[in-house]
Amino acid sequence: MKVTILGNNSALPAFGRHPTSQAVSVYGELLLLDCGEGTQIQMQRFGLRWRNLHHIFISHMHGDHYFGLPGLINSMSLLGRTAPLYLYGPVSLMPLLQQILDLANNKLTYPFQFIPLPADYAILVDNELFRVSTFPVIHSVPCNGFLIESKTKGRKLLPEKCKEYEIPAAYYDILKKGEDYERKDGFLVKNEWVTEDGPRPKRYAYCTDTLFTDSFLQHIIGVDTVYHESTYLEADVTKAASRFHSTAMQAAQIAKDANARQLLLGHFSSKYKDLEPFKMEAATIFQNVEPTVEGTTYDI
Amino acid sequence: MKVTILGNNSALPAFGRHPTSQAVSVYGELLLLDCGEGTQIQMQRFGLRWRNLHHIFISHMHGDHYFGLPGLINSMSLLGRTAPLYLYGPVSLMPLLQQILDLANNKLTYPFQFIPLPADYAILVDNELFRVSTFPVIHSVPCNGFLIESKTKGRKLLPEKCKEYEIPAAYYDILKKGEDYERKDGFLVKNEWVTEDGPRPKRYAYCTDTLFTDSFLQHIIGVDTVYHESTYLEADVTKAASRFHSTAMQAAQIAKDANARQLLLGHFSSKYKDLEPFKMEAATIFQNVEPTVEGTTYDI
Repeated sequence: MKVTILGNNSALPAFGRHPTSQAVSVYGELLLLDCGEGTQIQMQRFGLRWRNLHHIFISHMHGDHYFGLPGLINSMSLLGRTAPLYLYGPVSLMPLLQQILDLANNKLTYPFQFIPLPADYAILVDNELFRVSTFPVIHSVPCNGFLIESKTKGRKLLPEKCKEYEIPAAYYDILKKGEDYERKDGFLVKNEWVTEDGPRPKRYAYCTDTLFTDSFLQHIIGVDTVYHESTYLEADVTKAASRFHSTAMQAAQIAKDANARQLLLGHFSSKYKDLEPFKMEAATIFQNVEPTVEGTTYDI
Repeated sequence: MKVTILGNNSALPAFGRHPTSQAVSVYGELLLLDCGEGTQIQMQRFGLRWRNLHHIFISHMHGDHYFGLPGLINSMSLLGRTAPLYLYGPVSLMPLLQQILDLANNKLTYPFQFIPLPADYAILVDNELFRVSTFPVIHSVPCNGFLIESKTKGRKLLPEKCKEYEIPAAYYDILKKGEDYERKDGFLVKNEWVTEDGPRPKRYAYCTDTLFTDSFLQHIIGVDTVYHESTYLEADVTKAASRFHSTAMQAAQIAKDANARQLLLGHFSSKYKDLEPFKMEAATIFQNVEPTVEGTTYDI
């Protein structure tokens, strides 16, 4: 599992930084978290293919988190998409999108399903590859965080060993589930001779926009990576709270309290050109921290 | 008068080309024609200041012509704009914008006035510096073209000569209107001794999106520069008509029939990477033609 940052600035684009969007890749599937203005262009720029995208999650109805959505939805239709697309967002999002489509006389070429976000914790997607759940964070309008968990795809086959023990391909799925294989000659092939541990499941928490609060901490305990907004530095801690935003040190405190392995910072105010102070301030509380850079892909 | 191209691609962004937007500069005032996704970021990139912007014109309700508008309007508010902004667009645009603002709990910091576009020719703005009028073009949804005309600012003062003839600064405005000046000693200073002709008024016509039609030709006769969409090359002339778009040669025919001085092409389909064939095909009918390049400023 990895995440590519498409936009990491707060509402005002600045210093070449775009409004919020990021693409999480799980076994080749892309999940889009927020979709600020310019997301479709950033996806092109960084080589992310919409054909791998089936799920889009919008945290809240501030424009810097969704103004790129109508364009992306339109473009995929113009390109003849046929695969279904699932959109998860605030309940007011869908009527707005429908209006935009209607005004353009636009009928999408693909099935489009909207799932309104609930006010409480809920599982949104649960399939063979990943689970996505949502939880409320605290902002000036209703806003949701998301937790993406990859699943183990079972044990990993060792192709050479499978050949050596003459196991038919039809039994590979059974081996992946951890079972042994008995050959026709009665010889028992132990599972551990022909497989090894599959990749460890990973967990990624996305928390933006929010003021500093432990109200959602329970949902992100022990994650591998947490992305937490840090609109301001500590000198502006009062302003941060009054605007329902957080500082880099507050984000670090959340990562520490959640016992996360890694912290990614973003949603920087346009007043900051240099992001190094965000790393320095956060690192006083939580060492493994990175101010995100657009176009960079981070392992989770 | 000059125009800076912010986006010149058709609906699908491609090859680094953005959806439609351009900024016309008249005596330092900026007029924005359409506002595709990413316009505010393009304005930053090319050094255009929103403080000089008071009038935005939206041709029609296809997203590639207005999806950048909510972000731009929001951003100017976040930056504390206080000067009024006038928006001219299809009647359905304003309720949509209002909804977007309301959903974000967003009150603009500046007076915002919306003027719905009429179905027929009309003058939209008429002030000391310029006049903007609008006329219907023919597209799959109601769509308007625009004509921007700069005004002469009167005669141009020759500062050295004004000093030489000892004319008080209080009389400069009278000189600009072409009048003579009588000194207290009775000496008559002829206007032509202390002024010269002011800049010639210029006329710029903006015609996109439209199929090939002479229905609006009467409104653009004799313009200095016409920007006419050329979504396709001539090989796709049938497709162009069926989609209510034009080819480069058709755009050239309009420029020729309008007796324009210069033709700018844009709204290129994302199927074309190389734009040189647009110039070549158009030039067979109208010589002074340029396929526009983003970030380039053209004299009108």
